Amino acid sequence: MFKQEAMDHFLNPKSIAIVGVSKNFSSISGKPLSNLTLHEYKGDIYPVNPKYDEIKGLTCYASLLDIPGEVDVALIAVSHKRIMQILDECEQKKIKYLVLFGSGFAEVGKEGKQLQERVLKKAKNAGIHILGPNCVGLLNVKESIPIGFATSFETKEGFKKGNVGFASQSGAFGFSLFGLAQEENIGFSYIVNTGNQMDIHTLDCMEYMLEDDETDVVAGYLESIPDGEMLIRIAKRSKELGKPLIILKAGRSHLGKKAALSHTASLAGSEKTFEAIAKQYGLVTVNDIDDMVAAMKIFSRNKKANGNKVVTISNSGAAGIAMADYSEPLGLELVRLSPDTQSTIERIIPPYGSALNPIDITAQALKEQHIFTETLEVLIKDDNVDTIVVQTTFGGELGKDICNKIANIDKKTEKPIIVTLTGTNELTGEGRDILSEAGVPVFLTSYNTMLAIKYLVDYSNYYYKSNQEFSENKQVNDELVHNKGVWTEDKVKEMLDSMQISVPKNILVKNRTDLVNIEGELEFPVVCKVVSNEITHKTDVGGVKLGIKNSAELKVAYDEIINSVNKHAPGANINGVLIEEMIKKNGTEMFIGVKEDPQFGPLIVCGLGGIFIEVLKDASIRRAPIQVDEAYEMLKELKGFPLLEGVRGEKEKDVEKLTEVIVKISQFASQNRGKIKEMDINPLMVLEKGEGVIALDGVIVWKESTTSTVTSV
Amino acid sequence: MFKQEAMDHFLNPKSIAIVGVSKNFSSISGKPLSNLTLHEYKGDIYPVNPKYDEIKGLTCYASLLDIPGEVDVALIAVSHKRIMQILDECEQKKIKYLVLFGSGFAEVGKEGKQLQERVLKKAKNAGIHILGPNCVGLLNVKESIPIGFATSFETKEGFKKGNVGFASQSGAFGFSLFGLAQEENIGFSYIVNTGNQMDIHTLDCMEYMLEDDETDVVAGYLESIPDGEMLIRIAKRSKELGKPLIILKAGRSHLGKKAALSHTASLAGSEKTFEAIAKQYGLVTVNDIDDMVAAMKIFSRNKKANGNKVVTISNSGAAGIAMADYSEPLGLELVRLSPDTQSTIERIIPPYGSALNPIDITAQALKEQHIFTETLEVLIKDDNVDTIVVQTTFGGELGKDICNKIANIDKKTEKPIIVTLTGTNELTGEGRDILSEAGVPVFLTSYNTMLAIKYLVDYSNYYYKSNQEFSENKQVNDELVHNKGVWTEDKVKEMLDSMQISVPKNILVKNRTDLVNIEGELEFPVVCKVVSNEITHKTDVGGVKLGIKNSAELKVAYDEIINSVNKHAPGANINGVLIEEMIKKNGTEMFIGVKEDPQFGPLIVCGLGGIFIEVLKDASIRRAPIQVDEAYEMLKELKGFPLLEGVRGEKEKDVEKLTEVIVKISQFASQNRGKIKEMDINPLMVLEKGEGVIALDGVIVWKESTTSTVTSV
Repeated sequence: MFKQEAMDHFLNPKSIAIVGVSKNFSSISGKPLSNLTLHEYKGDIYPVNPKYDEIKGLTCYASLLDIPGEVDVALIAVSHKRIMQILDECEQKKIKYLVLFGSGFAEVGKEGKQLQERVLKKAKNAGIHILGPNCVGLLNVKESIPIGFATSFETKEGFKKGNVGFASQSGAFGFSLFGLAQEENIGFSYIVNTGNQMDIHTLDCMEYMLEDDETDVVAGYLESIPDGEMLIRIAKRSKELGKPLIILKAGRSHLGKKAALSHTASLAGSEKTFEAIAKQYGLVTVNDIDDMVAAMKIFSRNKKANGNKVVTISNSGAAGIAMADYSEPLGLELVRLSPDTQSTIERIIPPYGSALNPIDITAQALKEQHIFTETLEVLIKDDNVDTIVVQTTFGGELGKDICNKIANIDKKTEKPIIVTLTGTNELTGEGRDILSEAGVPVFLTSYNTMLAIKYLVDYSNYYYKSNQEFSENKQVNDELVHNKGVWTEDKVKEMLDSMQISVPKNILVKNRTDLVNIEGELEFPVVCKVVSNEITHKTDVGGVKLGIKNSAELKVAYDEIINSVNKHAPGANINGVLIEEMIKKNGTEMFIGVKEDPQFGPLIVCGLGGIFIEVLKDASIRRAPIQVDEAYEMLKELKGFPLLEGVRGEKEKDVEKLTEVIVKISQFASQNRGKIKEMDINPLMVLEKGEGVIALDGVIVWKESTTSTVTSV
Repeated sequence: MFKQEAMDHFLNPKSIAIVGVSKNFSSISGKPLSNLTLHEYKGDIYPVNPKYDEIKGLTCYASLLDIPGEVDVALIAVSHKRIMQILDECEQKKIKYLVLFGSGFAEVGKEGKQLQERVLKKAKNAGIHILGPNCVGLLNVKESIPIGFATSFETKEGFKKGNVGFASQSGAFGFSLFGLAQEENIGFSYIVNTGNQMDIHTLDCMEYMLEDDETDVVAGYLESIPDGEMLIRIAKRSKELGKPLIILKAGRSHLGKKAALSHTASLAGSEKTFEAIAKQYGLVTVNDIDDMVAAMKIFSRNKKANGNKVVTISNSGAAGIAMADYSEPLGLELVRLSPDTQSTIERIIPPYGSALNPIDITAQALKEQHIFTETLEVLIKDDNVDTIVVQTTFGGELGKDICNKIANIDKKTEKPIIVTLTGTNELTGEGRDILSEAGVPVFLTSYNTMLAIKYLVDYSNYYYKSNQEFSENKQVNDELVHNKGVWTEDKVKEMLDSMQISVPKNILVKNRTDLVNIEGELEFPVVCKVVSNEITHKTDVGGVKLGIKNSAELKVAYDEIINSVNKHAPGANINGVLIEEMIKKNGTEMFIGVKEDPQFGPLIVCGLGGIFIEVLKDASIRRAPIQVDEAYEMLKELKGFPLLEGVRGEKEKDVEKLTEVIVKISQFASQNRGKIKEMDINPLMVLEKGEGVIALDGVIVWKESTTSTVTSV
């Protein structure tokens, strides 16, 4: 909560010093002062520059140390070369909160990075918090306190206040978006640009805004995730509070390029991981500046949708077709209205209109506006309708009248009403202003309307979903604490067996004479596999024999394996040969993997084998642990899911048992958080419904492993 | 060319009668007259309404027959009930061109449809052409002749003329788009709304605009394709002329729902077919109104891109990241600059900038604008750069200066220069106006910029591709003229063999005693399959036996097949049993199908078998015939293509031979245009590289077929 207190000072400073202030008010060092005076900042302002005695009627001080009063926040507009000296002065003057505008730090290379580290160290020792460097500033919109040199601070019209908080790593993106959003009448509480975020980062800001009573929506532009655990914590808190988090994660293409060692690793690469985390924790992810404005607009209205059923009222056939075209790929449903609702609407609209969704209320509704309002009232009362879209192109005075009526109706219902008002600014701009000023989400195009509704529906679904048990079992199984190196198939299967996850009946044979032990214990046919923590690919060294029908064949197989392994992997330590019963039942081959992500901890990955993983890279990812419904969602995401449901005349597979196994492995991964480098159960045979799931091979590589990475065949 | 002459009259009328004119100029029947006078129409206007003697200073006539002069175009603003009488008058008055604004026709149901048919029949007999009904109007932008009641006709600022022609089935969509595009300074030549398009349809309009010397870009909003062959013809012509066709095809979700009988049919459903046709013939397809504006904007500049290599000059790190994020999924490449280019740029920009793409020229370039211009000049000269994006957020006077400089440089080069100028209208709107008025494509967001460049690059690639031989072999093979019914496997294989497409060596056995004939002719093991034009699924009736090792087994297999077929399909006509050698080589199973599309004629479909087609619906479609490079493109589109390249340790397959076979089948399909109901070669075994391709089964159902649809196993 230390940084949260700092955020309070940055956003509500009692007094502000501006170090390196300039009389050129169009310069970066002049703008912060002129912006504060333009918006009539109520606290004390202390300009600091030895060149001046006075600036804008304020006494100008030669140094921070000359300021008579207390300085809450100091804005530093001097070259990075003077920063260490300024820090000394801040320390002496007991200034705890600094905004560093300047560049010349980590963004310019090694030297700058070293300077940034020195600054951070010194600041930490002195208990100083820093916003920046390389940042444009921040804005308390509620109180009209602009700190910095963003061009959008220079507006003479004042800021539109509202319930959206926004943190942006990039100043250019942040304040461009802010400007565009304000143009569309989206009101803000706070906006902060974090720049190089050496101390205060985007998630700190988002956490602060989330707890702010007047902020209902929190958005962030992030080029990196400063703290994965913190993102999860904020996401959980956002669900508790019912405040959506909108995130634009930039740098996707770059991060996607990180090479990875094994399948699981390559699939759990950062981009896919972030997407999975976003889905799992209900983050609203957007792709560009327009999408973020659309999301802010619909969420700032603060309504939720009960489902994905959309109805459209329109006076244009083309708009109805467009809505239908967009709804399907976005996962929305243009709901089929009940006969009751239809006949009620038929009595309201002209006979040449249509009461089928998309509803055509005809251009007559421009003059007889009761057609509009009465139809709206009917749909509001229909529980089968989750969201109402009004699509119109009406401009002029009558168009404005309709907008006012929609705004009034919107106030009286909890059901989301979204408007598409297409047309030029000249023709329909005033109508859009009426709606947006009343808080009704209004879009220029059908596609943006439907996209925004998709955001709302996805978030609402997540919000209404029974609260998942987020608590994570951090207690560690004592037995497992000292695990090291590579656990081979036999040991992994022993563990799976103890977890009530089925494995084929097997016996580990340490030498040839022990082969007799399998008589009466295992049923033929059997499989033989070499067990060695030094052998990565068993088949590559001739270490696997299938379909062994009797004792004689078994002895031959054993000898062949030992000889082949000695030949192809000379000197490799052989722990034994695993003899196990062959599975004769039909099934689908899957894999379940665990991968420790540096940001988000243990991830669980699953997918179908063969071409699904190798050609189509078809895998689902979640952060461990997960619940049964989440495991089911993972499976449903797979392109190959129809194979589990049974296609091509095959029977349905045991998906229920499979989800249980995924959950168990996810719990195991969570309990062993930070210890597992990699775990792979592959293949996992999913039998027909009711027949269960059997793990046919598996490996665990513990982090303290001294051998190289090992994967199973 | 008959309709083209009509288009000339509609767009350039020498005189206009307005039937049912009103003195209420805010009504649909009043607006056409006030729009014509507002834009100072030079021809004669004849208002027609028995209620008035004079209107707006013009003599008003009681009926068309009272008009003294010749009437070139008559606008009909009366109820559909009076339409037949008006038609009579037009016939008497020898008026050949009518615009019907009113509704009450096909769009309102059966009665309206009948009326529409009657009107069309009468008009045809009288040599009258009709635009509409249920249409808003049309606009000759070049000559400022607005015909109709679109709200955008009421602008007092005049229309922005330019090189974009646009035909829209929907009036609401058409004139909304027109308004928005004009706001962004996109200039038009013509815009026509076709409404119910009983006579003149969207493609007629597009064809006319395509041939217009001052139109360089033709766009269409289509809810249906009025004439598939015509679309192909226009597309080919557009390539000859180098004028892109931009199409928004609405009603996709609806059309996609059409049920289909077989795999090939369901995959060649209208939406997928249209997408395939669009790709094959270089149509620029867009998804919504914003995308269409973006496409119009970039194409109206009339430059082409030499490739997909993009370079970005920016003064914001975030913009660079955004460009990188968007480029990859859009198929664009942020090119790696040559060391030469980099070092040249390094000498221009400040030391803290970056000469790596995305190039950061720093905010210093606002003051020292030579940094901007010199960097641009370097990139223009670099042949490794196909398109240049300038990304900036600069507003104010200096921002405007930069925009003017970019516009000047853009004039001097054939290389596309695209600008992203992010920021509010207040701040950066003037800069955008400077650029767009100079014809430089300028966008508000990075995403829209990259999307537009994608359109340009895709189209340019298509345009520069060696001209495909579009000529279609319409001559018909005499032998095939009388084909009827179902061609079973044996006959299809005979034909494939004659086309030099490999099939397994086989012998058709008509009765048991002929089994001896295979001795010495075929090599064991062999396969036996029943041949019957009345049996759809051979395996379902026990009609297939595999892996027959010798004569004895063969006899047994033969008997079993005959018995089983007689039992499971009693009375079915058995043509014989096909005995063929089993293929022992490794291969990948594919299918090639032919499907007659009602709009576009014979389509060729191909894909991989198994889960690829059954679970993933993975298939490529083209209109037949195609060339080798197109066949290769079809294969590359498949999700399963990596299997042909050889994954999972398998060898590369004979893709070369496969493309030849696809081309041959496409030629066969084209030669038999209108005759084939369905053709399916499945499986087609693609062997390893150099080993060829073998058709293992196949069926053709000719259109004159009297039996029900038959598909192979």
